[in-house]
Amino acid sequence: MSTIARNQWYVAAYGREVGRELFSRTICEEPILFWRTEAGEAVAMSDRCVHRRYPLSEAPSRLDGDKVVCGYHGFTYGSDGGCVFVPGQARVPRTARLRSYQVVEQDSFVWVWIADPQNPQQGDPTRIPRAPWMDSPDYTVVSGMEPIDCNYGLLVDNLMDLSHETYLHGGYIGTPEVAETPITTEIDEDRNVIYVSRHMDDAECPPFYSKSTGIEGRITRWQDIEYTPPCLYLLHSRIAPIGAPLPGDDGSDPHAFHSEIVYAITPSTENSTLDFWAVARDFAVGDDTVTTFLAENNRTVVMQDVVALNILQKALDTEKDGYQELSINIDAGGLGARRILKKLVDAPQAVTAAAVG
Amino acid sequence: MSTIARNQWYVAAYGREVGRELFSRTICEEPILFWRTEAGEAVAMSDRCVHRRYPLSEAPSRLDGDKVVCGYHGFTYGSDGGCVFVPGQARVPRTARLRSYQVVEQDSFVWVWIADPQNPQQGDPTRIPRAPWMDSPDYTVVSGMEPIDCNYGLLVDNLMDLSHETYLHGGYIGTPEVAETPITTEIDEDRNVIYVSRHMDDAECPPFYSKSTGIEGRITRWQDIEYTPPCLYLLHSRIAPIGAPLPGDDGSDPHAFHSEIVYAITPSTENSTLDFWAVARDFAVGDDTVTTFLAENNRTVVMQDVVALNILQKALDTEKDGYQELSINIDAGGLGARRILKKLVDAPQAVTAAAVG
Amino acid sequence: MSTIARNQWYVAAYGREVGRELFSRTICEEPILFWRTEAGEAVAMSDRCVHRRYPLSEAPSRLDGDKVVCGYHGFTYGSDGGCVFVPGQARVPRTARLRSYQVVEQDSFVWVWIADPQNPQQGDPTRIPRAPWMDSPDYTVVSGMEPIDCNYGLLVDNLMDLSHETYLHGGYIGTPEVAETPITTEIDEDRNVIYVSRHMDDAECPPFYSKSTGIEGRITRWQDIEYTPPCLYLLHSRIAPIGAPLPGDDGSDPHAFHSEIVYAITPSTENSTLDFWAVARDFAVGDDTVTTFLAENNRTVVMQDVVALNILQKALDTEKDGYQELSINIDAGGLGARRILKKLVDAPQAVTAAAVG
Repeated sequence: MSTIARNQWYVAAYGREVGRELFSRTICEEPILFWRTEAGEAVAMSDRCVHRRYPLSEAPSRLDGDKVVCGYHGFTYGSDGGCVFVPGQARVPRTARLRSYQVVEQDSFVWVWIADPQNPQQGDPTRIPRAPWMDSPDYTVVSGMEPIDCNYGLLVDNLMDLSHETYLHGGYIGTPEVAETPITTEIDEDRNVIYVSRHMDDAECPPFYSKSTGIEGRITRWQDIEYTPPCLYLLHSRIAPIGAPLPGDDGSDPHAFHSEIVYAITPSTENSTLDFWAVARDFAVGDDTVTTFLAENNRTVVMQDVVALNILQKALDTEKDGYQELSINIDAGGLGARRILKKLVDAPQAVTAAAVG
Repeated sequence: MSTIARNQWYVAAYGREVGRELFSRTICEEPILFWRTEAGEAVAMSDRCVHRRYPLSEAPSRLDGDKVVCGYHGFTYGSDGGCVFVPGQARVPRTARLRSYQVVEQDSFVWVWIADPQNPQQGDPTRIPRAPWMDSPDYTVVSGMEPIDCNYGLLVDNLMDLSHETYLHGGYIGTPEVAETPITTEIDEDRNVIYVSRHMDDAECPPFYSKSTGIEGRITRWQDIEYTPPCLYLLHSRIAPIGAPLPGDDGSDPHAFHSEIVYAITPSTENSTLDFWAVARDFAVGDDTVTTFLAENNRTVVMQDVVALNILQKALDTEKDGYQELSINIDAGGLGARRILKKLVDAPQAVTAAAVG
Repeated sequence: MSTIARNQWYVAAYGREVGRELFSRTICEEPILFWRTEAGEAVAMSDRCVHRRYPLSEAPSRLDGDKVVCGYHGFTYGSDGGCVFVPGQARVPRTARLRSYQVVEQDSFVWVWIADPQNPQQGDPTRIPRAPWMDSPDYTVVSGMEPIDCNYGLLVDNLMDLSHETYLHGGYIGTPEVAETPITTEIDEDRNVIYVSRHMDDAECPPFYSKSTGIEGRITRWQDIEYTPPCLYLLHSRIAPIGAPLPGDDGSDPHAFHSEIVYAITPSTENSTLDFWAVARDFAVGDDTVTTFLAENNRTVVMQDVVALNILQKALDTEKDGYQELSINIDAGGLGARRILKKLVDAPQAVTAAAVG
């Protein structure tokens, strides 16, 4: 029984990853070929030739203008997946067509619609959740992608419960206050969004923020999570020196430092996950030293998660007869996420709400 | 359900591979020990000691004259597989006997009979298909063996449909005409032989042939496949400058260059295959430069197939619910081969016809 | 169906391996965390945090005084396995407790009780079989542990039938007489102990003994095996020059050289085994040259077994429909061991007898 929700939009790549080279990613167990037409449009189609299922992403397969030529027997496809040439005969069979995928480029991501084979629906691009900071001129972004050898649910668990920052990311983004401070959790069952907030009024400033903002003393630190299952996770992070004014009623907040931490959580297979991560900041936006520091520091933090989740999945794989977990208050967000994910798996309809805008 | 036909002869090795060292190959899922007696006879027996199933090919097992001594507890066997010594007691149990295999050395190959355990039959050596060029004084041969991590059926598909030469082997043996020229296919259901022919009247001469024959212009190129399932595949290749006389009624053909391309396709396990390949030529038979060139060039071509089939098998292994293929005219030979192989699997009788002689 | 007997004591480690670093071993499929309290007591508990099952032996998990802190979310446990801290709330759930294991340190080993989940019993420390030479001042010991990728039954087979010394360990501990000399086997069904004896009156002295004792001529060599399934195997080895007096009625035996060869055979998983090995000698007890020689020579012998058993298990894993063995007189001890082990698996009660004392 699959744990992966279908009839959903997923991030398959950054736009910068898709170009004039054939590029393959397995998304929700489906091998998908991505490339960009000569006119610059990103397209996606099955990465398996209809003839004998040779992967079109493997050499000597190649792009020939806006056509893909299979490297095994030369079956040739257009950008819509339709076959336009087969060897040894003039007639191209009517059914020779690669499955093609709906693609939307938005907020620097390439989103792809993964339909449910039992109950396929069209994807509605207006329901893709937003992360506008990713390509906003007011923000500077560092980003990357790391594959993890675990079920995507372990990454959801990880990100919904930030108490782990204190232990797994101590010395980077974790301080004692993260584990100590109680959270508030809100689950919007209609829009399928989960909110987890932790507001620390008087906290140590971890190196990630002290080095990037220049703050030397203690801080108020707000972590406001907004997760739109299955794929988009946002952590609105607000850091300010203690005593700095609160945000104004109009939303202005000139005395604080804001980071929009964005994760796209994409199941590749049941036991492998694509972890797209980004940090968008509204401070020191032109400071390359800060950019380099945050890129390296955040990648280190992501890799701490990757290593831990690889270990955890291996441990779970050796459990023979299922296993028990013990959940506490900090797990409210993670358990809510599991419940919504199960609902999406059981009723694969396009219920994803449009996210914060 | 096995895809491997039993009650069949298979090539297990070249004769040159079997000598006074213990040598093991897994043929049709059966681990078989090969060695040559002091009198020079190749023998084959189970590669598992009857006592605790230690592999007799593994050190410190060893050959002692015409006896094999197990390296674990010293059980000792004669060339017929019968046990002649056990430790700690004088009496050798009557049932202590390795399964022994019928072996025939012919055309430079060591053929082994793989009986069907449910319906075992004796092998008839006269029904082994022939490849007489392999050790004919009129031909010079280059040969080798490459293991492939795929079901043997993928190699059969590959060899029965040479349109792939144009794409996978472009710059070596492929030219546009191979993919463009229609084939004729003939299936001899009585003798279980499949013939696929492609006669190109006016074709580019690929480097494989231009460098070995010295032909500089365009050529007529005939490819005549003759496959005797399960194991022996012959490609009779005739190359001649355009305008050269056709073969005489007596079969003489002095104006053309002939290569007999021989493949033995041996299933090792369900997902691994032994790809024995050879090129026997009737031209430049004493020219070592040509021999070296063809040995290297053909091995490169074989490795292009190996890499592609390894990729293809991995891709197929990830298919969850079966998969669809789309077949066209060029696949007539491959589909015929599949049909005959299925017949051999379903009715494992010694129906292999004696091949061309 | 598991081949592993439960409600049994197993050797999990040497005492020297357990200290102030978190240390994990999988014993009978159970991942167990070992560490030593500040007071010096070895303790054992489940190596999986109750919260999300992160392995407590994996960084950044750590020991903090007599508490274990999980590296993922900081769940903290005392030496009895009870949880004393969780993040984000003051109340520790009553059920937050790691499974803890009975541990006994004896004869240099750390023994752990593996209860049967279906029918759990308490372990009785007085029933742990003894190997008093391991930390006796009258003996000098060399020891080690090697993991083997095989079912533990293959190691039991190996050790119960020493005829393999002649073949697998020729030039080290094997000579022709070991394989030639018949054995006597005695099985104590009440106490579940198996005895196998081989007394060689006139034997070649293998290098293992000639170099360590200085004996130059032929020897009498007694091998007296005493195996208390599942875990403790003793080989009482007596070497003396031919013609030396027999042991006295009071057990004194001043003219012979005695080695107590001790194996603890611990299943890690169904297909991996911990092979604890030791040689305790009552001669040259202060001679470091002899100690170094025996440590290296015996490790070489152990590794010959490890390599052979890894090969054997791989060979057995490819058998499709089960397989047949052929047993002879030398196998009486091994077959007896299998029978008793099956009895222990089928009726997992603490029937292990107290061994020789």
